[in-house]
Amino acid sequence: MHTRHRHILGKHRLKHSPRPPPAVTVTRLRPGLSSIAQPGQEKQTAHPDPQGQEGPRLSPDTAVPPCIVPRRQHGDGGNSQPSSSSRRRQRGRSGRPEPATGTDPRGTAVASAAASLTCRSLETSAIACAIQILLRATGIGQPLEFSFSFPARDNLIHLSNPHLEKMKDDILYHFALGTGTHDFPALFGDVKFVCVGGSPSRMKAFITYIAEELGLGSVGADYPNICAGTDRYAMYKVGPVLSVSHGMGIPSIAIMLHELIKLLYHSKCSNVTIIRIGTSGGIGLEPGSVVITSQSVDATFKPQFEQVILGKTVIRSTNLDDQLAKELMQCSKEINEFNTVIGNTMCTLDFYEGQARLDGAICLYAEEEKLQYLKAAYDAGVRNIEMESSVFAAICNLSGVRAAVVCVTLLNRLEGDQISSSHDVLVEYQQRPQKLVGHFIKKCLGKV
Amino acid sequence: MHTRHRHILGKHRLKHSPRPPPAVTVTRLRPGLSSIAQPGQEKQTAHPDPQGQEGPRLSPDTAVPPCIVPRRQHGDGGNSQPSSSSRRRQRGRSGRPEPATGTDPRGTAVASAAASLTCRSLETSAIACAIQILLRATGIGQPLEFSFSFPARDNLIHLSNPHLEKMKDDILYHFALGTGTHDFPALFGDVKFVCVGGSPSRMKAFITYIAEELGLGSVGADYPNICAGTDRYAMYKVGPVLSVSHGMGIPSIAIMLHELIKLLYHSKCSNVTIIRIGTSGGIGLEPGSVVITSQSVDATFKPQFEQVILGKTVIRSTNLDDQLAKELMQCSKEINEFNTVIGNTMCTLDFYEGQARLDGAICLYAEEEKLQYLKAAYDAGVRNIEMESSVFAAICNLSGVRAAVVCVTLLNRLEGDQISSSHDVLVEYQQRPQKLVGHFIKKCLGKV
Repeated sequence: MHTRHRHILGKHRLKHSPRPPPAVTVTRLRPGLSSIAQPGQEKQTAHPDPQGQEGPRLSPDTAVPPCIVPRRQHGDGGNSQPSSSSRRRQRGRSGRPEPATGTDPRGTAVASAAASLTCRSLETSAIACAIQILLRATGIGQPLEFSFSFPARDNLIHLSNPHLEKMKDDILYHFALGTGTHDFPALFGDVKFVCVGGSPSRMKAFITYIAEELGLGSVGADYPNICAGTDRYAMYKVGPVLSVSHGMGIPSIAIMLHELIKLLYHSKCSNVTIIRIGTSGGIGLEPGSVVITSQSVDATFKPQFEQVILGKTVIRSTNLDDQLAKELMQCSKEINEFNTVIGNTMCTLDFYEGQARLDGAICLYAEEEKLQYLKAAYDAGVRNIEMESSVFAAICNLSGVRAAVVCVTLLNRLEGDQISSSHDVLVEYQQRPQKLVGHFIKKCLGKV
Repeated sequence: MHTRHRHILGKHRLKHSPRPPPAVTVTRLRPGLSSIAQPGQEKQTAHPDPQGQEGPRLSPDTAVPPCIVPRRQHGDGGNSQPSSSSRRRQRGRSGRPEPATGTDPRGTAVASAAASLTCRSLETSAIACAIQILLRATGIGQPLEFSFSFPARDNLIHLSNPHLEKMKDDILYHFALGTGTHDFPALFGDVKFVCVGGSPSRMKAFITYIAEELGLGSVGADYPNICAGTDRYAMYKVGPVLSVSHGMGIPSIAIMLHELIKLLYHSKCSNVTIIRIGTSGGIGLEPGSVVITSQSVDATFKPQFEQVILGKTVIRSTNLDDQLAKELMQCSKEINEFNTVIGNTMCTLDFYEGQARLDGAICLYAEEEKLQYLKAAYDAGVRNIEMESSVFAAICNLSGVRAAVVCVTLLNRLEGDQISSSHDVLVEYQQRPQKLVGHFIKKCLGKV
């Protein structure tokens, strides 16, 4: 499989930039507080930590104060100052701190980082991680979240896991790939765009579509499944574009993302943008509308993701890149084929009761309650509902990659629950996010 | 597709029993309390509801008091008295009320039902549901859980959803099947055993295996995917056995189960047993050991599943059928090919941080913390970890079907995180739950 991939991928490989040393901001919390490590957050936390304001520094970075470098600026072409979008991202729509930086539904205080460690290489970042893990293990600081921030010239994938440095080989079990059996830099080193979606066949259709759009495919060409050794996920590549399926739901996409981030890291990829192209249920939109996610919110409309670690819940940010969302919106205007909006996306753990449907095997609420809930979601800025965006945003945030979610709405949930459009209509709807993202990639590569 | 299925399935169809009227116990709670509706629970709740002890009765059922008929007795061949296993099931291992019947991690009191309505037909059960929904909508009782209990001669699939009675057609979107386009009783009316697992190819392998074991298959026969119209799930059938894939994680299997329960209901199936045959990480067991789940527990080792409904969390029971587990254990002794144990299974929402792995893209804890957590799980009776069993148990409980979880362990998590066994070894491991369940089905059909 490896040899075949080299052959398939070789002619499209781009030179990737040399690897400058990153700086990593490691955030330490007051014991008992969890953090989503928002840039500049210490100015806004509901629970500031005076002790932590002057934390230890392994290596000062005066040129780019780590605490104010927005993670989402990594791929923005060199601007290392906080953008208006990143400043806006530090506030909720009302200007108040976002729920994820305030108090979670269980009353757990969620505070920002205070002490910070700035490192100038992956090795020292690993040391910093180890120091924090030691602090946590000794109970001095727990639970922890890390916020990687580094000069914009550094746009590599980052891992928040020092243990991986000790591993000789890394088996990506659900991809049926491994560093001991596959040459990751040769196979994937040129990847700049990763598009992910639930359905394997749709992701294969996307790679065929994008190959033709980029002039990299031959008519009737077949693109082999790079993950042919498993049926958990399907993966296809052409030139700088990787297309990966992730199944349905937060756990399924989370497994894929952990292994994808490690794949990109082992491949020494840089300047990577990851976009989820999916389907969803719309709220107050005509079916077939496309929603570019502004914030992914949970079932209580808060922009946060609850990650359970060792039996404890940690709150993580689900913000997405505002600038990338605007660029995608501009692409939709340029192709001008379907209605597109920027709005909040509600991410649920369940398709039936979790999305207030009346047509599951179990439903113990009335239609009026369903409509009240969906209207409350609409009032909170929610324009569509799906099942993967929150953990997608959280993992991309922690890995320092630009990310966006672009989903088409298959129905208007204010008018019904069942997806009853014809097969042909649904197929055309599902091509819309592909067209939009395809146009975006062509623009980025100067092919429009 | 429909015609082809009739042809394929016709020769294996069994006569299914006439449909006696069921009785349904609808449980009403004190406002603000959620229930897991355990049989006989009112004797043990931490928050009894005196008012509720003498609830209204639409139609008394003196022969079989609804409050003491265990749901898990439906398929047990006629015994309508609570078994020792059902009485044990009402207690934790220590004899104390199970955590799910006590207080959930967020401090929400979880109380039992008190008032009960007993109905003698699906129509009146729908009326009872409607009454409860009205009570809930008016705020008199919320949140609600329903406990269906009925004479053991009634062993049909039950839906906890009165809204479906009003629907002309029901589209099972993720199966690409619908009552308006497919004759469900003709296609599936004879189903008695449903085996579900994550991988589509493994579920196809199982249908080929069971067809040969039951003498229903011809050599080299191919079994068409009944869900060929979608790539979300794969479904295969031979005689009374249905084999369905469910992907990875709670949300993915929940979508499949909602549609599977509706499929079995629309098909008028009776005496159905559903068994999940899967893979897992073991704790303190040699790789390749098979675990038959006693209780599915969450990341805090509590036998409960948190279902979010309209933004609120309801706690549901994750108990499984003790008698069925014992029958499966006996089957393992009879085939005597691999180590099998009955133990608790921890069900998590994440494969990496959620299962205390050190090899994900994100890991902010030390190896010592990981081992402490896994050893605490072992001390709580956990013998393996997977990602679907809790919602599987919860939905099967509410639908009145016998259910079991049989998973092979691919590694011992106390010794590592990476699944590094050879492909051939892993394939042989994955055949073990199939052999065990295959032997069980043969015994049930008198073919051993």
